[in-house]
Amino acid sequence: MPYESVPGILLATAAAGIRYEGRDDLVLMALPAGTRCAAVFTRNAFCAAPVIVAKRHLATASPRYLLINSGNANAGTGRQGIEDAEASCAMLAALTGCHNEEVLPFSTGVIGENLPLQKLRSALPVVLGRTRETAWPEAARAIMTTDKVPKLASRQFTLSGRTAVVTGMAKGAGMIRPDMATMLAFLATDVAVGQELLQRCLSKAVDVSFNAVTVDGDTSTNDACVLTAIGTLGNEPLDDPEAPDYSAFRTAVEEVCRELARAIVRDGEGATKLVTVRIEEARDESEARRVADAIAHSLLVKTALFASDPNWGRILAAVGRAGIEGLDIDAVRIWLGDLRIVSRGGRDSDYREAAGRAIMEGKEIEIKVALGCGRAETELLTCDLSYEYVRINAEYRT
Amino acid sequence: MPYESVPGILLATAAAGIRYEGRDDLVLMALPAGTRCAAVFTRNAFCAAPVIVAKRHLATASPRYLLINSGNANAGTGRQGIEDAEASCAMLAALTGCHNEEVLPFSTGVIGENLPLQKLRSALPVVLGRTRETAWPEAARAIMTTDKVPKLASRQFTLSGRTAVVTGMAKGAGMIRPDMATMLAFLATDVAVGQELLQRCLSKAVDVSFNAVTVDGDTSTNDACVLTAIGTLGNEPLDDPEAPDYSAFRTAVEEVCRELARAIVRDGEGATKLVTVRIEEARDESEARRVADAIAHSLLVKTALFASDPNWGRILAAVGRAGIEGLDIDAVRIWLGDLRIVSRGGRDSDYREAAGRAIMEGKEIEIKVALGCGRAETELLTCDLSYEYVRINAEYRT
Repeated sequence: MPYESVPGILLATAAAGIRYEGRDDLVLMALPAGTRCAAVFTRNAFCAAPVIVAKRHLATASPRYLLINSGNANAGTGRQGIEDAEASCAMLAALTGCHNEEVLPFSTGVIGENLPLQKLRSALPVVLGRTRETAWPEAARAIMTTDKVPKLASRQFTLSGRTAVVTGMAKGAGMIRPDMATMLAFLATDVAVGQELLQRCLSKAVDVSFNAVTVDGDTSTNDACVLTAIGTLGNEPLDDPEAPDYSAFRTAVEEVCRELARAIVRDGEGATKLVTVRIEEARDESEARRVADAIAHSLLVKTALFASDPNWGRILAAVGRAGIEGLDIDAVRIWLGDLRIVSRGGRDSDYREAAGRAIMEGKEIEIKVALGCGRAETELLTCDLSYEYVRINAEYRT
Repeated sequence: MPYESVPGILLATAAAGIRYEGRDDLVLMALPAGTRCAAVFTRNAFCAAPVIVAKRHLATASPRYLLINSGNANAGTGRQGIEDAEASCAMLAALTGCHNEEVLPFSTGVIGENLPLQKLRSALPVVLGRTRETAWPEAARAIMTTDKVPKLASRQFTLSGRTAVVTGMAKGAGMIRPDMATMLAFLATDVAVGQELLQRCLSKAVDVSFNAVTVDGDTSTNDACVLTAIGTLGNEPLDDPEAPDYSAFRTAVEEVCRELARAIVRDGEGATKLVTVRIEEARDESEARRVADAIAHSLLVKTALFASDPNWGRILAAVGRAGIEGLDIDAVRIWLGDLRIVSRGGRDSDYREAAGRAIMEGKEIEIKVALGCGRAETELLTCDLSYEYVRINAEYRT
């Protein structure tokens, strides 16, 4: 995992024993005074207690600490959950002398169990004593739940003659669906950016990255993506969306988000293949997205992908049920990679099964559909559905 | 499979060798002259060739024969598929002296392969020589694909002092989702019913039965449900929707449809549990249905059901992502059977995991959600997601 640390941002991890034995499950990220922070949260109506508290705190103060635990989502925990999330912030505030509102809490893990506050209390002094700039890999590992690999991405670029950096980590492998897809992602930069532009930058980057991937179609209660800009680079704060400096920054943020989102799908629970669903010639973007969703969420398409079976009939059936008004099926074409498999409402006359199977046996597959309705397009990243997905999710609590 | 045959309706089956070895895969249903026929078809834009041809024929003539094959769906076969479906009707018409339009073709099986006309041609004289009133069980078996059990249901009732009957068979185990859910269902009655009322009766019955079940969320290209009324009972044709006789008939049709729909979910690919998702206190029926859909299609809920894990957090998360505007999460309650598991946005204070697990270990489970928004309600029948579903669908073509 090559990455660049962000000068001025300190991280630390500890084993609080919240759910996992023998591994770190608590992360502290310490931010300098004056940090700007943008965030995007889950749209699930049952959003978790830490999401509610983090939103509340963000509205009143600039954060000094992000406090993240894995193993317990503190979701579906009602009033007690909110009190617990507030209490965890208060404990850290008492130890560091900051205000409660300067701590943002994040949790990921099992839904519906109360946060073990006592375990957090014991672990907080430990993480506080360990903070350093180079703990990104340990932090990326400590926020994992069913993830098999830690996810870390960095981009460097030149800004006002200085080398700037954007670095991020993410976790997530299941319960992944657009609407803030990854359960948790934390990005940081040394660039100084105005608050409004920072939020705009993050929202756009999330749309084309985390909101363009799906593993199993379930939106989590705890999704959160945070971008902190600490300004240690010493640049004049970015505040002009048309400036070339902002453009370089925006590109770096987008690229880090895309790389992390891609890593989440690649690590999708039980996933054996990374699948890009590309829709072209749609009437508008929402129709394009509807078709992409129908394909990416079709259990029949996903199991065919797992079996490396070029069962194009299942793709065609998914397009057909996406509810596109007045679809001219003779105008629809479907490709596997560069191979056209469907035209004129049926199997392409040049298509041969052996060629389709060869493509399906790859680890990275593109399914492209041209609808013949217009010029809008979209892309959605997903994975296949294997025995392993069922095993992981049937056994996760046992 | 207790059932009643319908006096005047003859059935026959044969092994045409379309795809399966050593079993029947062709069904002929012969209907008397003057039969009334109502039908509901898939809303998939890529509807199969036989669906297109059956609709066309129904518009011009009253059917004398239903010709049904399993093993090949004749879907995604373009112009050739339509020619083949027409040709199969013409072959039967030539043998029996009826018009091509008096034959309705139905197919179910693999998508995207051409119908083996030569095999049909050889088998048609065989089925024609075997027709009898009591072949319903053989027919119900011959239309199966991945089904493990044949599905047959009957209701008798009194109409004008005579014993009337409604009997139906259905097939379907995967690619099952509302929008005409079962791939194929054929009902027949000896009652005389006016055309308009017959169609209205079937459409309503389909809405509360086949359109209220889901296995995997995929809508097939071949779905069709047909109700033939041959009038051999000798009653005055039913034409008044307010008449008690019609009410008895409607009830019988609905009950047969519900029983068949239930049998489809029970036989859902890899299913180990039959799950009723009941939504109450919704603002309107479409919101109720949206919540039911979110729960019934959640892979996380379905795998928890498979594991008998009372993981109510996943149910709660599914409710939360259903996109209900202004949902007051404190007003939402969730039950497993009679056991209240969620209230006030979290685990019910009286809930104990052992009690939840005991219910989840049953073979038939009800998940009930009260949204606290209004008075609309709905019910959706579904099943769990097991290793077996993945195996069946990963291996179906290999």
